[in-house]
Amino acid sequence: MKSFDFYSPTEVVFGKGGEQQVGALVKKWGGKKVLLHYGGKSAEKSGLLDRVKASLKAEGIPFVSLGGVQPNPRLSLIYEGIELCKAEGVDFILAVGGGSTIDSAKAIGVGLGHPDEDVWEFYFGKQVQKMAPVGVVLTIAAAGSETSNSSVVTKVEEDGTHVKRSIDQDAIRPKFAVMNPELIYTLPKYQIGCGIADIIMHTLERYFSAAETLGNDLTDRIAESVLKTMIQYGPQYLATPDDYKAASEVMWAGSISHNNMTGCGNGGDFATHLIGHELSARYDAAHGATLTAVWGAWARYVMSENVLRFAQYAVNVWGCDFDSADPERTALAGIACTEKFFASIGMPINIPQIQSGVTEEDMAAMADMCVSRGRTAIGGFKKLSRDDVYNIYVAANR
Amino acid sequence: MKSFDFYSPTEVVFGKGGEQQVGALVKKWGGKKVLLHYGGKSAEKSGLLDRVKASLKAEGIPFVSLGGVQPNPRLSLIYEGIELCKAEGVDFILAVGGGSTIDSAKAIGVGLGHPDEDVWEFYFGKQVQKMAPVGVVLTIAAAGSETSNSSVVTKVEEDGTHVKRSIDQDAIRPKFAVMNPELIYTLPKYQIGCGIADIIMHTLERYFSAAETLGNDLTDRIAESVLKTMIQYGPQYLATPDDYKAASEVMWAGSISHNNMTGCGNGGDFATHLIGHELSARYDAAHGATLTAVWGAWARYVMSENVLRFAQYAVNVWGCDFDSADPERTALAGIACTEKFFASIGMPINIPQIQSGVTEEDMAAMADMCVSRGRTAIGGFKKLSRDDVYNIYVAANR
Repeated sequence: MKSFDFYSPTEVVFGKGGEQQVGALVKKWGGKKVLLHYGGKSAEKSGLLDRVKASLKAEGIPFVSLGGVQPNPRLSLIYEGIELCKAEGVDFILAVGGGSTIDSAKAIGVGLGHPDEDVWEFYFGKQVQKMAPVGVVLTIAAAGSETSNSSVVTKVEEDGTHVKRSIDQDAIRPKFAVMNPELIYTLPKYQIGCGIADIIMHTLERYFSAAETLGNDLTDRIAESVLKTMIQYGPQYLATPDDYKAASEVMWAGSISHNNMTGCGNGGDFATHLIGHELSARYDAAHGATLTAVWGAWARYVMSENVLRFAQYAVNVWGCDFDSADPERTALAGIACTEKFFASIGMPINIPQIQSGVTEEDMAAMADMCVSRGRTAIGGFKKLSRDDVYNIYVAANR
Repeated sequence: MKSFDFYSPTEVVFGKGGEQQVGALVKKWGGKKVLLHYGGKSAEKSGLLDRVKASLKAEGIPFVSLGGVQPNPRLSLIYEGIELCKAEGVDFILAVGGGSTIDSAKAIGVGLGHPDEDVWEFYFGKQVQKMAPVGVVLTIAAAGSETSNSSVVTKVEEDGTHVKRSIDQDAIRPKFAVMNPELIYTLPKYQIGCGIADIIMHTLERYFSAAETLGNDLTDRIAESVLKTMIQYGPQYLATPDDYKAASEVMWAGSISHNNMTGCGNGGDFATHLIGHELSARYDAAHGATLTAVWGAWARYVMSENVLRFAQYAVNVWGCDFDSADPERTALAGIACTEKFFASIGMPINIPQIQSGVTEEDMAAMADMCVSRGRTAIGGFKKLSRDDVYNIYVAANR
């Protein structure tokens, strides 16, 4: 195996009724006053927020609330959260929601840890030294942010353009994550599809790494385990979201897919994420959908770098026969299976399915933005220049 | 999936030369003065201890040394370590070794956290409130103690009898584990075999759980991934211990097998461990060898509780054909494959291979000890009474 660091300290409390332990968990992790951070009205309507508040009250932990997190969470709300926390003396951020809410909570935590600095600078590589701890009550299986080292945030510039950037540092991993599969029953179908896509893509982004970083058999097997579990239970969860068994397998796969257990030793790729980020920044499209819209085009564009890796994927994950005389045929079969699966769960497999009328100028602008701000290339499986990224947008735009 | 808590906070630094980072890691995790705890002369002779000391010195971290940890680590040395640390003002325990050294280090850490209590009481269920942190430089792939919540310690009573007990609490997980596969090149073959057996058994002990706790597909697939990796690379590592690839796969599997990633949701069994502990306490036999000596007898004794589970194991791990008309045949084939594998790596598959002349009285005494001290039964796949345990000893003793 190749060298790696692995650090996933988040305490996971998995199962029914976990939200009733939130107060005790905040106390255990040293929280004295909490910011209750969440998104829209669903957490209010479902009664979940009330149950969380009751758990905090039972432990005598005061809290203030800040809702309104939207998909592709906005820097502006994060600034508001930081000021609120400073004014109220908050020392612990509790995210009740999915990836956007957790990412927003992490950003607020980083901001509180560096009260005299602009939190946005940490999205350009500055090292996080300190942060207010974050806890999670997860309501969407998708982003894996409940155990990951990532926070992705969107800044809306004065001219209306969106800039989407991430922190990827171990310091920002949550202290605990309450994962009750019953809390993910009531999502819209499209959002469920996006979540399934995101979980699969977090695994594929690590599975397709530069050839010189591959050769980590146990890591590969764990990644293939996550993928097979998603292929088995993803559609079942989509069809019957209140199927506890299916929801629970998907929910746990979502965490494993992004706590780096599926990537130990592998260098990772994440080009599809970056290519997709520009689509979601420009068209405010759902993150998961932007990934499936470009993955097939990416895969065919880069496949020749390591055909046998794509063949391994086809055989071990999709059960394709291996064609020793023409491994490329096997590799392409695996890509086709993936696209067919994405389509079956209602996800786009090209750009027009998320946005019609995208022009060459649009794609050029997105490629410029994608390979910019200090980046001269993206990806690991194949290093992609700005022109490569443009070519992938073009291939995906038909 | 069934409910579970998962907490594995240990920072893993995996790869060549990791021991050179030890000083920085101790500093990062707050250590001001270190107890360097190790076993025999091999760490001295190989130069590893010198490299570790140099790394501590480079960071200006003072240390005192305590070697002499033996297999089945003794409570007496732990008492000595606690007194030494108190006298010297040590606040961080650095274990350089394998499971025995790490378990001993954890015990010293617990003792320092409770300076006015007898550390042995924590091996009878008392809750650990506080402990001096433990770091690890791993030199044996086997016990998984570098990321686990376990510490197993042996007390030699005044009459010479050995009492072997464990702490299994999250509070005692190490802060960091340096895992350099090159450090496990020079072990004796028998010890390598014992390590392979131990890693496999940590996985099987979770895989064979009570039927009502099973149904955790992702967990099963990860467990099967660990087992297949061990079957593939274990013999290769045994044959050529300086094969980096094989050593590294085995080393990482050793951690995953016991950080509970392979058991999320499953209730666990661990009867084989407890049955084996009595053998190793009574005859000072190597831990791994005591497990393989009794596992086959245990498996055939309990199989009827859930034949299909054993059949799943046979098919998914060993590639046996599934016989729908006679699933028991498939189940037995999987048990036979396991015993054949254990024998192929030089491990005993019955008691006489580790100790000849064990009498009915000996077995009765071990069964009494195994199901005692507050335990009325052991195991999860099947609850075993004292008489069941006796019957398994008898079955294994031929």
